[in-house]
Amino acid sequence: MIVVMKDGATKDQIEKVQSTIIEIGYKHHIIKGVLKSVIGVVGDDRGKLNHLERLSLLEGVEKVVPIVQPFKLASREIHNETSVLNVGDVEVGNKKIPVIAGPCSVENEQQMLETARAVKAAGASMLRGGAFKPRTSPYTFQGLGEDGLKLLKEVGNEFDLPIVTEIMDPGDIDILEKYADVLQIGARNAQNYSLLKLVGKSKLPVLLKRGMSTTISEFLMCAEYILSEGNDNVMLCERGIRTFETATRNTFDLNAIPVLKEKTHLPIFADPSHGTGYWQYVTPMTLAAIAAGADGLVIEVHNNPELAISDGAQSLKPKKFAQLMKKAAPVAKAVGREI
Amino acid sequence: MIVVMKDGATKDQIEKVQSTIIEIGYKHHIIKGVLKSVIGVVGDDRGKLNHLERLSLLEGVEKVVPIVQPFKLASREIHNETSVLNVGDVEVGNKKIPVIAGPCSVENEQQMLETARAVKAAGASMLRGGAFKPRTSPYTFQGLGEDGLKLLKEVGNEFDLPIVTEIMDPGDIDILEKYADVLQIGARNAQNYSLLKLVGKSKLPVLLKRGMSTTISEFLMCAEYILSEGNDNVMLCERGIRTFETATRNTFDLNAIPVLKEKTHLPIFADPSHGTGYWQYVTPMTLAAIAAGADGLVIEVHNNPELAISDGAQSLKPKKFAQLMKKAAPVAKAVGREI
Amino acid sequence: MIVVMKDGATKDQIEKVQSTIIEIGYKHHIIKGVLKSVIGVVGDDRGKLNHLERLSLLEGVEKVVPIVQPFKLASREIHNETSVLNVGDVEVGNKKIPVIAGPCSVENEQQMLETARAVKAAGASMLRGGAFKPRTSPYTFQGLGEDGLKLLKEVGNEFDLPIVTEIMDPGDIDILEKYADVLQIGARNAQNYSLLKLVGKSKLPVLLKRGMSTTISEFLMCAEYILSEGNDNVMLCERGIRTFETATRNTFDLNAIPVLKEKTHLPIFADPSHGTGYWQYVTPMTLAAIAAGADGLVIEVHNNPELAISDGAQSLKPKKFAQLMKKAAPVAKAVGREI
Amino acid sequence: MIVVMKDGATKDQIEKVQSTIIEIGYKHHIIKGVLKSVIGVVGDDRGKLNHLERLSLLEGVEKVVPIVQPFKLASREIHNETSVLNVGDVEVGNKKIPVIAGPCSVENEQQMLETARAVKAAGASMLRGGAFKPRTSPYTFQGLGEDGLKLLKEVGNEFDLPIVTEIMDPGDIDILEKYADVLQIGARNAQNYSLLKLVGKSKLPVLLKRGMSTTISEFLMCAEYILSEGNDNVMLCERGIRTFETATRNTFDLNAIPVLKEKTHLPIFADPSHGTGYWQYVTPMTLAAIAAGADGLVIEVHNNPELAISDGAQSLKPKKFAQLMKKAAPVAKAVGREI
Repeated sequence: MIVVMKDGATKDQIEKVQSTIIEIGYKHHIIKGVLKSVIGVVGDDRGKLNHLERLSLLEGVEKVVPIVQPFKLASREIHNETSVLNVGDVEVGNKKIPVIAGPCSVENEQQMLETARAVKAAGASMLRGGAFKPRTSPYTFQGLGEDGLKLLKEVGNEFDLPIVTEIMDPGDIDILEKYADVLQIGARNAQNYSLLKLVGKSKLPVLLKRGMSTTISEFLMCAEYILSEGNDNVMLCERGIRTFETATRNTFDLNAIPVLKEKTHLPIFADPSHGTGYWQYVTPMTLAAIAAGADGLVIEVHNNPELAISDGAQSLKPKKFAQLMKKAAPVAKAVGREI
Repeated sequence: MIVVMKDGATKDQIEKVQSTIIEIGYKHHIIKGVLKSVIGVVGDDRGKLNHLERLSLLEGVEKVVPIVQPFKLASREIHNETSVLNVGDVEVGNKKIPVIAGPCSVENEQQMLETARAVKAAGASMLRGGAFKPRTSPYTFQGLGEDGLKLLKEVGNEFDLPIVTEIMDPGDIDILEKYADVLQIGARNAQNYSLLKLVGKSKLPVLLKRGMSTTISEFLMCAEYILSEGNDNVMLCERGIRTFETATRNTFDLNAIPVLKEKTHLPIFADPSHGTGYWQYVTPMTLAAIAAGADGLVIEVHNNPELAISDGAQSLKPKKFAQLMKKAAPVAKAVGREI
Repeated sequence: MIVVMKDGATKDQIEKVQSTIIEIGYKHHIIKGVLKSVIGVVGDDRGKLNHLERLSLLEGVEKVVPIVQPFKLASREIHNETSVLNVGDVEVGNKKIPVIAGPCSVENEQQMLETARAVKAAGASMLRGGAFKPRTSPYTFQGLGEDGLKLLKEVGNEFDLPIVTEIMDPGDIDILEKYADVLQIGARNAQNYSLLKLVGKSKLPVLLKRGMSTTISEFLMCAEYILSEGNDNVMLCERGIRTFETATRNTFDLNAIPVLKEKTHLPIFADPSHGTGYWQYVTPMTLAAIAAGADGLVIEVHNNPELAISDGAQSLKPKKFAQLMKKAAPVAKAVGREI
Repeated sequence: MIVVMKDGATKDQIEKVQSTIIEIGYKHHIIKGVLKSVIGVVGDDRGKLNHLERLSLLEGVEKVVPIVQPFKLASREIHNETSVLNVGDVEVGNKKIPVIAGPCSVENEQQMLETARAVKAAGASMLRGGAFKPRTSPYTFQGLGEDGLKLLKEVGNEFDLPIVTEIMDPGDIDILEKYADVLQIGARNAQNYSLLKLVGKSKLPVLLKRGMSTTISEFLMCAEYILSEGNDNVMLCERGIRTFETATRNTFDLNAIPVLKEKTHLPIFADPSHGTGYWQYVTPMTLAAIAAGADGLVIEVHNNPELAISDGAQSLKPKKFAQLMKKAAPVAKAVGREI
């Protein structure tokens, strides 16, 4: 790290910084500038953010600049290729782009059968559906719970689609491990570190959604929480951030795809349904996500969005989803991928 | 709610909307405008967001505008005065502004004793300290756990200060109920609905912090989660939102205070330490929070910030805290309060 | 518009609203709801925002909701196809996607010749370069002024590339009209209404960049300023908005493309160089912009970015630009376009 | 500045960076770390942002970190006390907090006379009013122009109130200098550098409003544009930034006050009317601004807000303004100021 001293920092103040660095066990070099002095500090400061803070509070110190990125296991520096992982027979992180499709919430058998049949026919690889739902209002539908999971699993089995479903409450882990093929961490829980540690101890792959105000760097630290507990099978998912713009429900941040691909080896999904919030923008933004380099897609499909209990506005009808998949194929091919 | 039809919506489309409204069980009135038709819908649509969505998806509909705010129990409409609640002997929501002070993390006995003695002497009403810490990096200090709680409680008892501490994991609720006087929900868990429901079932008062990207309206829905489970003792806390500005760690949104006071009867705290992220801005922003109408304050104080394991940069030294309390008194008086 | 009355609004308050509506010259219908009354107001309220405000201030009124979008000439409602316009021989708004390429600033002859030759060879349609530069610091290079324009024009002529250059100061309009083929309004001047009116009186096409914190709806009002002065040749350009994310210089908001295509007939450009701020993200985000439906592209190219006076970090070298154009062709084809 | 090399940067790459630094005319020191090498660069890099960029583009370089803040004349480092300047007989930057009050737009004589009489009686020091208005829509009232200025000046003279009015178009400078006592630069023109340079050449004091997405650091650079042209009389004004929150029209960022006071000697105003956008929040946020350390206030007052052509929702009635001034006095006193 680099310690920048204030203009006019005294000799004593500089020496105090130097002795503190030695106390921490690091080495240092001082550079006396025209306007300011800076002290270069040598030592592995990843994960030791408190050293930074401690130095930043000494008298005469203007700021402390960290040099090394704080994530290790998620970093592309230690694993140069995109990681490939398996969800049942589905390979993630390879040339073919897997599509996770299905409704926001599991509602009933007919809904799930019709939707699953349609997305399977159109080329989806996994089935999504929520049994435990994070809803803004406590007075709205909160999900079917275990009954929903059972139904999701049965329908997934029938159409040979691994199932992806959200965990909200640590107390549900046993029940979820019984049914789910992929555990999803939703945006509102992206920085729920207790939950991240818990799924880090699971053997199931995790689909980690970016939080609404999570920076890319923090997002990688969230992944690091899971990885550091021993679960290597982490898939990241961009799903929109919160900005001042209200024409879309969120601002789907496709820039995160090339940025993440530069920094991490973890495969990166994109969710244009949550990202934009309106079904009519889902198709163009799906094509854009593929062109930007997404390794996977999450798309909400509902057999009857007008009757959906949640997120109907952003759900595609089966027919529209089939059209999307047809449009996606040549774009994927144009960037050297398949869908 | 109001259904706005698109320009050129057909008679059939309008009739379909009307029949759907009747199906839902609501009444309606149609207004044919110069450019557009709109349909006024009469019925209590609080908590029935899916009706809005369902109508918004019908053909010919441009948008659906809700009229009634979705929170009920938190609303000032049903309870016109600020609610007064008790934490031990401390009254919250009344003329006197209680101050919750203490370090970010419970670290050791000396730290807690020195800090507690100092904040008590300066006029603080409650003691804060984290035993379970939400840290950005999994490689940094995660809190002392139950040992930390015990220590916090002992020190609180010694100085007759009720203690405020964060719950992160639902599995910790029993242990926390054993020691804590107030359960804090941190910003990262503001929309962790499982946790909100859980503390809603507790008898302990809850200090609910606003999430980094939580709108004021959503914040009230988070409170509603707790209230709807039967726990009336909710204190809201503004602690900064995430914006483009980086000169402060967060953008401490003091506007939330008058806005919340207009909408809810719950008492409102302000946390200038997290709100700004730098100790040198804490005093002016504390005075500003009082002037804006805050019902309580949360201020980080550490006997030795240079050695703090976390959040040292935003912690006041005991002496600075005592000065702050002295400066706060005339400002509180100037707005008809005490501190 | 819709006037929503507060709970418990009195008969007198409602009558006052009704009489004010009549005074304005509009018609109204009242809807008495279970919890609130609302008053539907019939009349063309586009451009009459003060009526909204006036009503919103009457006693007993909770809020006033506008129904009609405030832009007219830019609206797709009055012109259903994307507008096609000509810049010299280059057609904008049609199947072929024109690419505006070149450096941030015009610096010298060699730079311009080398860059122009390279971008022409790779397939660019227009040449960009700034002679008047909006720089964050007054102490940095402010552009070559008229000398820069002359040079840009000469080089544009030599390679048969129409030139695109920014206007910052109304006083420069005569000089710019002498040389430029397209006037660019930069992001910092997106809501400089004096300048918008001025270019609205020009006969030159205008490339209007979105401001850093301009909503899509406001962006269309900025275009409306130009259109309402009689200049129909407006091209919109998404170039990134300001958010909390710092991994990219701006958050390039590709969602704006499908949203704008739904609302306006004006052709929409995308500028991934400013949008992301780093050359290594320009190629994937260019492909994404094409897939999302962009009608044109703006890409910074510099013959020697290491020596660029401005924006070197986001400029592509000629070789990288040629590779980008090769990668772009199949993506354009995949979405039914050409480049 | 500090040049951080990538992991595994080669000897050649490091030497190329070193020779480039020498070419620029700076000195350097290299620090070889455990994971990365960093190169400390000694030289005054203020205003030479292109050196940073140039180095950042060399192969093997990960990033370049500037050390010195880029503003000079605005910096508190060169002028340790808050600058005091005079507007007519009104002193700005001293113990007494001047209040600039008046309507958004100059509309007619009665409006101006009634409003000016009232604000003068309540203790305001200057009169504001717009004659040239930046309106979101080209179809709404754009201001009375010179007639408005004349009226504003006459009324200002009658009540002995210096007048503050906005300049939007450089072409209006002569006319404005004829009437105005203070030139206001509005938020939308905060980064209109042509206009900033122009008012920098004027002898009139300038009230510079922060742009909606202008960081504090950029805001100081905007002031630097004015100062560097020779006009020392710059007053900064916080008036709200754009964030995701919609309960207020902007997010009035009071944190900017202590942050700016730390960095600059220029006096700092606060505008709670634009900052919040709703009259009912203006009084508490005015008190908060005073408590936070504001050197001046800008408050919209209109004799009849229901009939205001613009910004009625955020304007106080004269009676409310008088109450505000009464409430403000003890708060000012509590923080050692007067109003």
